[in-house]
Amino acid sequence: MKAVRVTVQPEHRSVEVPAGTTALDAVEAAGVAIEAPCGGKGQCGKCRVVLRGEATPPRATERRLLGEAEIAHGLRLACQAHLLGDAEVLVPAEARLGRGHIVVSGVEREVPLEPAVRKIYVSVPPPSLEDQRGDMERLLAATGLNGCMPDGIELARALPRMLRGSRFRVTAVAIDGLLAGVERGRVGAHPLGIAFDIGTTTVVGYLMDLQTGQELAVGSRLNPQTRYGADVVSRVEFAGSRPDGLSILNRAILGTLDEIIDETCHAAQARRRSIYEAVVVGNTAMHHLFLRLPPESLAVIPYVPALTSERYLPSQAVRLRIHPHGRVYTLPCIAGFVGADTVGVALASNLLASRGLRVAVDIGTNGEVLVAADGRLLACSTAAGPAFEGARISQGMRGTDGAIDAVSIGEEVRIHVIGDAPPLGICGSGLIDAVAELRRAGIVNEMGRMASADEAPADLPEAVRARLQGSGATARFLLARPDEHPEGRTVALTSRDVRELQLAKGAIFAGISILLGRVGATASEVEELLLAGAFGNYVRQESAVAIGMIPALEMNRIRSIGNAAGSGAKLALLSKAMRAEAREITRKVEYVELSNDSAFYERFTGAMFLGPMGGEAAPAGRPGGGGA
Amino acid sequence: MKAVRVTVQPEHRSVEVPAGTTALDAVEAAGVAIEAPCGGKGQCGKCRVVLRGEATPPRATERRLLGEAEIAHGLRLACQAHLLGDAEVLVPAEARLGRGHIVVSGVEREVPLEPAVRKIYVSVPPPSLEDQRGDMERLLAATGLNGCMPDGIELARALPRMLRGSRFRVTAVAIDGLLAGVERGRVGAHPLGIAFDIGTTTVVGYLMDLQTGQELAVGSRLNPQTRYGADVVSRVEFAGSRPDGLSILNRAILGTLDEIIDETCHAAQARRRSIYEAVVVGNTAMHHLFLRLPPESLAVIPYVPALTSERYLPSQAVRLRIHPHGRVYTLPCIAGFVGADTVGVALASNLLASRGLRVAVDIGTNGEVLVAADGRLLACSTAAGPAFEGARISQGMRGTDGAIDAVSIGEEVRIHVIGDAPPLGICGSGLIDAVAELRRAGIVNEMGRMASADEAPADLPEAVRARLQGSGATARFLLARPDEHPEGRTVALTSRDVRELQLAKGAIFAGISILLGRVGATASEVEELLLAGAFGNYVRQESAVAIGMIPALEMNRIRSIGNAAGSGAKLALLSKAMRAEAREITRKVEYVELSNDSAFYERFTGAMFLGPMGGEAAPAGRPGGGGA
Repeated sequence: MKAVRVTVQPEHRSVEVPAGTTALDAVEAAGVAIEAPCGGKGQCGKCRVVLRGEATPPRATERRLLGEAEIAHGLRLACQAHLLGDAEVLVPAEARLGRGHIVVSGVEREVPLEPAVRKIYVSVPPPSLEDQRGDMERLLAATGLNGCMPDGIELARALPRMLRGSRFRVTAVAIDGLLAGVERGRVGAHPLGIAFDIGTTTVVGYLMDLQTGQELAVGSRLNPQTRYGADVVSRVEFAGSRPDGLSILNRAILGTLDEIIDETCHAAQARRRSIYEAVVVGNTAMHHLFLRLPPESLAVIPYVPALTSERYLPSQAVRLRIHPHGRVYTLPCIAGFVGADTVGVALASNLLASRGLRVAVDIGTNGEVLVAADGRLLACSTAAGPAFEGARISQGMRGTDGAIDAVSIGEEVRIHVIGDAPPLGICGSGLIDAVAELRRAGIVNEMGRMASADEAPADLPEAVRARLQGSGATARFLLARPDEHPEGRTVALTSRDVRELQLAKGAIFAGISILLGRVGATASEVEELLLAGAFGNYVRQESAVAIGMIPALEMNRIRSIGNAAGSGAKLALLSKAMRAEAREITRKVEYVELSNDSAFYERFTGAMFLGPMGGEAAPAGRPGGGGA
Repeated sequence: MKAVRVTVQPEHRSVEVPAGTTALDAVEAAGVAIEAPCGGKGQCGKCRVVLRGEATPPRATERRLLGEAEIAHGLRLACQAHLLGDAEVLVPAEARLGRGHIVVSGVEREVPLEPAVRKIYVSVPPPSLEDQRGDMERLLAATGLNGCMPDGIELARALPRMLRGSRFRVTAVAIDGLLAGVERGRVGAHPLGIAFDIGTTTVVGYLMDLQTGQELAVGSRLNPQTRYGADVVSRVEFAGSRPDGLSILNRAILGTLDEIIDETCHAAQARRRSIYEAVVVGNTAMHHLFLRLPPESLAVIPYVPALTSERYLPSQAVRLRIHPHGRVYTLPCIAGFVGADTVGVALASNLLASRGLRVAVDIGTNGEVLVAADGRLLACSTAAGPAFEGARISQGMRGTDGAIDAVSIGEEVRIHVIGDAPPLGICGSGLIDAVAELRRAGIVNEMGRMASADEAPADLPEAVRARLQGSGATARFLLARPDEHPEGRTVALTSRDVRELQLAKGAIFAGISILLGRVGATASEVEELLLAGAFGNYVRQESAVAIGMIPALEMNRIRSIGNAAGSGAKLALLSKAMRAEAREITRKVEYVELSNDSAFYERFTGAMFLGPMGGEAAPAGRPGGGGA
C-alpha cells in the first residue's frame, strides 16, 4: 500500500499514512485535534482546512457547505478529502478542538488546555514482506509516539489481536507522549480525567473532559477515615497503633474515591475505563494515607514526611480503579503540615506570578497560610484545629443541612439555617458570624468573656438578653430556643466555644502576621487576601475581619475562592504547565516552621483578641462595642 | 549537624555530607567507586587519595602505609581522613574500582565497564526542624540521584523505617541514576546482574559482578519448551493451538531461568536479591515467549513480531525472581526471524564499527547471517533448520556426552566422542566432519550421492569400504560398528542425513552469498568470517569450507567466537554503551527477507553442491575427490 506524507500546519508536524486516508484522520494521526461534531459525515462543515497536495476532488456537500470561492482557495472539509499524494494541511484556529485556554471555575485562572492524555485515531499501515516492523513499532510510528508507558508490556501483549481485529484502525491513548492504551476503531469518546481533593473531613472529586476542559460532574463524600480519628494527628497515631492501621486507613480512602468515581461517572454517563489520569491533592497526611506511605513521623518532631515530591504512578500500583493502564499524579507536598493541597491553592491563586503583596489562607481542618511578596513565596501551617468544621464546638457541625451558617443580632436574633431545615447545630461561618455579632452587641468582650444576663449592656434588647444563660465559664447564648424549634431543641453557643474560636482564629492571624513580618510587610499593605476552603466561600468576610481572624482590610481586597485546593488539582489535570509550576512552587517556597518560632507564641497570644486587627497582632484601633 | 561540600576530582562531582564523614564515604556518596578491600579499616592502603581541605590529621597507620613524603604532598587514606570542612578529593586511577575496561571472554571485545546498576553508601543527614525534607528527597539529595524507578512507591513506603533503623546510614542501589533499592548500613556485597541467552534448544545464564565485570558463574539447561515443539515454528503453533498455550510456554522458560539463577547463585555463593538487573537475548520467538507476547504472527507471512524494540521492565512484571525492584532489559529484535540474539552477535563481534568486509554466521536452531561492509550492516535468516543440533539427522544429537564430534577417514575411520563415552549419535560438528571426510574419500559425490560398497572408489581401504551398507536412497556409512561399541550399538550416517546437511549448509551459504551480493562483494573479498553459536566453537573450519557451508577462505580469516549471542548479552549487562550500540544496530541494519528474494532459491539450489565454494554459490574451482 502506498504511503503518503502529510504535514499539518502551522505546527509543521508530519506523519505518514496510507494513501486514501482522509485529511481528518491524517490530521488526527499527527496529533492535532480537530472539530468534527458530525463524526466525519460531511454534515456539519466544521472541519474546514486548507489543503495543498493531491486529493480526491471536492464533493457536492463541500461545494454546498464551503462555497465555490473558498474551494478555489483550497478550502476543504477534512473529512471529505482523501489524500492521494503528499500533502500539507493548514488547520485554522476555528477548526481546532479544545486547544486554547480554559478557565477553572471558582478561581477564574485561565490556563492553556494541555492535558497529559490525548487520543489519536490512526489507520496503521498493515505489514508486508517488505515491511516487517513489529506491531508495537508500527503503531508507535503511525501515532508519532516515542514509546510505551513503563508497564506497557501488557499493551504489547494485546496489540497483535487488536490490530488484526480492527483492520489496523485503532484509537491510541497517549499519556505524556507515551502509549498508554489502544482501543478498536475510531473511538469518539473523549479521554477523561478526575481530580481529587482529599481533605481530612471531606473528599471531593471532579470528573473532567480532557479534550474540552469541561467539568462533567462533581462528587463529594465525608472522609471515612474520620471514624479512626477526627484530626490529622489522631489519624496518624491510629496508623501507627496497630500493624494494619495504615492499610485500614488506606482502604477506607480508596473505597471513598471509588464511590466518587462511580457517582461522577454515573452522573456524566461515562465509563470509568475512559478515565486515564487522576490527579490527587491533600494535606501531607492524607497524601501519605492515599499512597500508603507510613505517616508516623509526621506526628512527631521534626514532622518529616516519607515523600514530598510529585509522583507519577500506574493506577494499579495505588489500586485506583480507573483505566487499568491509567496513571495517577500526586502533586508535591511542601512539608509535614503544608501539603499538596496548599500547592493546589498556590496554583489556583496564581501566587507564583504574583506582583505585589498577596495572602492566601486555606481553612480546612488545619489552616495554611501563603504569602506572596514580589517574587518570594512563604508558607506556614497554623494548626488552627478543626473548630471551623465543628469539632470542639459544643454544638458544632459541618456546613450541611441543619447548620446555622449566618447569625445577626438586632432587636432579636436572626439565624439562617442551611437547607431551610430546623437548626441542629452551628457550622464555621455561623460560628464566626455569631461571635462577631455577640461582640458587636457587647455580649462578648474583646478578651472573649461572655457576659451573663445581668452583666450584658443596658441597651441590649430584652429578647436578646433573655437568651443568655449561666455566667462566667458556664455562660451560654441561645441561638435557637426550644420554643423556636419544631422538635423543641436548643442550639446554643457557650463561653467555651468562644474560647475555641479565639484559639483557632488567633492561630491563623498569628500565622499571617509572622509571614508578613518575614517579608517586612504589614497587614495594611496586603493588596489581596484570598480565603480558600469550602468554608471560605460561605464566611461573611466582615465578620472574619470583625473578630480579627484576618487583617482589617477594605472588603474589596478580600476574596473568597472556594475549594482552591480542588481547583489546583483540576488545573494540574488539564494543563501540564501547571505541573511544572507546582514543581517550581515547591522549589521556591520558603517554609516557615511556627512551632520553632519564638515570635509565634507571642503573636498567637496577642491574636486571641476579638476585634479588628492590624498586621502586628495588635488591635487595628480601639475596637468598637462595649462590655469588658 | 554541619554539612560539608566535597568535590571529587577529576570528575568535578560534588556532594554534601555531614561533617565528620570519611573521605571514603564522601567519595562513594559522590558516586565514585574506590578500592577498599579491607572494608575501610586502614589496613590495605588501597584507598589513596589526594585531599585538599580541612580534615582530621594523618594517623600512624597512614604514616606507615603512605610515607611522610607522600603525606606532605597531601596523600591520605580515604578511609582514615574525616572531613571537617569543604574539601576536594582527587581519586587517582589506581584507587578506582572496576572503572575502566573489561574484556568479555570468547569474543575479546573490550568495552567500558559502565553497568546500569551501582551501589552508593551514604550517611544521610538526619532531619531537624530546620530541615524537614521528606525521607525520600533527603536520600535522593544525599545520593545525588534524580529520582526513583517508576515503581518506586514501595521503596518510599519502606524508607522511613529503614532510615531510622540504620541511624540514617544506608546503601542505595541505583539503576540508570534512579533509586531502585535501599539496604541498611554499609553493604559490601557488589551488585550482580545476570545475562541470559534463551536459545530454542539451550538456555544459558551468566552471573556477573557488576562492580568488577567478572563472570561469577555460568549455568545452562535445555529449553524445556522443546517438549512442545523442537523448532520455532512448531512451538509458535503450540502457543496458538490452545488458550493457555502461550502461558504454558512462558511458565516453562521462566522455570528454567529460575533454576539457572538458583544454580549460578549457589555456585557463586550469592543471594538472588543481589541481582538487580537481568539482560535477555533470544531469537524473536524465544523473546516473545519470555515476555509472554503472542508469537502467532511470527509463523505466518509476513512474519511480523508483536514487539521488536528494546524493553526495560520491572522484574515483577515479567515474573523473573531477581531483586523485587530489579529490572529486566531485553535487547531489541530485528525481524521475525532475526532476533535479539543476532543483535547480541553483532555487538559481540563489533560489526557496527567494522572496517572492510566482515561476515558473522550464528548457527543454532536457525542460521542467521550478518554482513558488515564499510558502514553498512545487513542481516538475514537462512532457516537452515535444526540439522546442526541433531534434529532430522537419523542419529543426530546435541553436542553432549556420547556425541561423535569429529571424524577422520584414512586407512580406517577414527572418531572422537564427547566425554570419551561410548558413541550414541552424531552432533553438528561431527556431521560436517563426517560428510567432509566422506567427500574427500570419494564415498559421497558433489551432488551428495552416497556410493554403495560396489560403487566406491577403487583405492578405498577395505576397512572403510566395509562400513558402507545398502545403496542409493538407503545407503549408509557406519561410523561405529556394533563390534566397536561396548553395548553393540551402531552409529551410522545415512544418505538422507547427507541430504539434510546439504539443505542446511546450502541455506547458510546462499544467505551469505545473497548478502554479499547486496553489497557488491564476492566471497574472496571477505576479510574475516566469524562462526558463532556453541556449535561454531567446535566445528572444524576446514571441514565447513570443504563441504561449502562457508566460503572458501584462508583459515586465518575464519574465527570461531563461541556463544556470541550470550557474549552480547553480557556486554549489554556490563556496559550501557552497548545498549546504545544495540539500538544503533537495529536502526542501521538492512534486513533482507530471503523468502521474498527470487535470487535466493537459485543460489540455494546451487549451494547444495558439496565442495569448496566461492561467493557466488558456485564451485570455488573444480572440487577435488573422485566419484560422481
